[in-house]
Amino acid sequence: MSGEFDLIKRYFSRPVPEGYIGPGDDCAVFQVRDSHVIATSIDTLVEGVHFFSDTNPYYLGRKALAVNLSDLAAMGAIPLGCLLSLSLPLVNEEWLQEFANGFYSLSDAYKCPLLGGDTTSGDTVSISVTVFGQAKHSALMKRSAAKVGDYIWLTGNLGAPHIALQAMLGNIIIRDNVLQTIRQCLENPNPPVIFASQLGVLANAAIDISDGLIQDIEHITAASNCGAVINYNSLPVHPSIAGLDSHLMQEALLSGGDVYQLCFTANPKRSKLIVKLAEMHGVSVSHIGHITDGHNVVVNDSKNIVIRTSKKGFDHFQ
Amino acid sequence: MSGEFDLIKRYFSRPVPEGYIGPGDDCAVFQVRDSHVIATSIDTLVEGVHFFSDTNPYYLGRKALAVNLSDLAAMGAIPLGCLLSLSLPLVNEEWLQEFANGFYSLSDAYKCPLLGGDTTSGDTVSISVTVFGQAKHSALMKRSAAKVGDYIWLTGNLGAPHIALQAMLGNIIIRDNVLQTIRQCLENPNPPVIFASQLGVLANAAIDISDGLIQDIEHITAASNCGAVINYNSLPVHPSIAGLDSHLMQEALLSGGDVYQLCFTANPKRSKLIVKLAEMHGVSVSHIGHITDGHNVVVNDSKNIVIRTSKKGFDHFQ
Repeated sequence: MSGEFDLIKRYFSRPVPEGYIGPGDDCAVFQVRDSHVIATSIDTLVEGVHFFSDTNPYYLGRKALAVNLSDLAAMGAIPLGCLLSLSLPLVNEEWLQEFANGFYSLSDAYKCPLLGGDTTSGDTVSISVTVFGQAKHSALMKRSAAKVGDYIWLTGNLGAPHIALQAMLGNIIIRDNVLQTIRQCLENPNPPVIFASQLGVLANAAIDISDGLIQDIEHITAASNCGAVINYNSLPVHPSIAGLDSHLMQEALLSGGDVYQLCFTANPKRSKLIVKLAEMHGVSVSHIGHITDGHNVVVNDSKNIVIRTSKKGFDHFQ
Repeated sequence: MSGEFDLIKRYFSRPVPEGYIGPGDDCAVFQVRDSHVIATSIDTLVEGVHFFSDTNPYYLGRKALAVNLSDLAAMGAIPLGCLLSLSLPLVNEEWLQEFANGFYSLSDAYKCPLLGGDTTSGDTVSISVTVFGQAKHSALMKRSAAKVGDYIWLTGNLGAPHIALQAMLGNIIIRDNVLQTIRQCLENPNPPVIFASQLGVLANAAIDISDGLIQDIEHITAASNCGAVINYNSLPVHPSIAGLDSHLMQEALLSGGDVYQLCFTANPKRSKLIVKLAEMHGVSVSHIGHITDGHNVVVNDSKNIVIRTSKKGFDHFQ
């Protein structure tokens, strides 16, 4: 690695909390509470594939960590720390400073210290982040744990990231001020990390909405060997996109990805406690459907007319 | 992610041991023994930067994991599992199968199961691996733990990866049969993982030789605020390169990277036990020098004449 790339390390070498070994040794080292398990995930963002070249580097730094924190949230684990591997075609110090500031802003907010990583040259910007969290095994929210009769819940709202992406790709035209608002949802997602880390005792299965609501619920129903009914009119819509064309809206709500909110299932008896926990954390939650003993994910309108159905077999590899 | 890229997952979805949650949920999950800490590292290999485009994919799969296992070894941690993030410009199933076979061959050998990861498209092949290991805190071999008077030890031998790389870059010419032999050292490193995981009770500081012997020992002396003397004639040389030009040899032994063997320091009283442990594991160890109260890393020849010296300040960011 060239000296130039060695310099990059300085942007990512802020002190780590006591009890950790951070950047500067062969490995980062951290402790886990006794009788807790480690949850971990790696996600890579590649320029031109996952983000536009001109994305604000502060937001990019946040998003690189946010998409991983979202995976921890979906297991009900509380963050412990993270590693960052950064490939860059050239060293732009201003860009790096902003990227690092964004990364650390989220890392500080959720007590998920950056413990180490590496930097290397590469043809395009590529960012791999690994996160670690801890949870009691009994509080993990596995995709396979949904039970027939469970209510299906969703945090936050849907649609804005998909509409923003389509507008930025030039596929649709929306007003500039609307785009400015909803672009934030695409570029600066904020998964409900702390709420999720306390949800495991109340909820059964959970997943984060990265691929699109229906596809992600299908991951739960496939792993839990069940079906689901979703009430289209219960879906929480981002207020800025409420008046858009209904076909575009349906696509955005049901299939739009990059949401990084939590979809989870829980026994209906837990509903009051779930609403209370959400209020405590300032998280909005919507009851959007329930788990069935079928194999389909069915979407009904307010008159119980099926507007979309799907059938997926059980797939170990999903 | 396209369906084509979804298919890649199948190459990396072999079953994981009981007690783990592997691919197929939002996070991988694993357990840690009570009163043990987690050691973790991420390393990225980029095509054209860290490996040639025509590198045998079986070896590449092994190396992607080996360079990370080497980091665990350098902390004295025993592997627990790993994550893989793979960016590919196109899906070549034959290449993927070989890469996966290579990866799993080392993952199986060192009981370091692949627990999850992601695959995405990208302009060049880029491979990020994160490994996790566990160790008792008291048995960690930190770079900062070298003591004045410690012997400096090295596993394996030096020089072959550097000579192989220079020959493959066309910078030097060596016999074809020699290149075939030493190329293995560059492309198929085999860090002393199990030996290292039992070394922590005997050794103080350790590092893996990835950047080159002197530079890596300088990382130890900087972190431990000490110096070192290395006896050039004690350095273990790969037998196939023994007759090469002495200047080239010196460069290869002192500065050649990509070795992924272990350099460690230990109280001289531990020497017999260290040699015994190494014998038990079929690992060769050489006593190559000692830690001093200076700040330089000095290399002496057999007549105690200094053939190289360096001085580095203490640098928190190294």
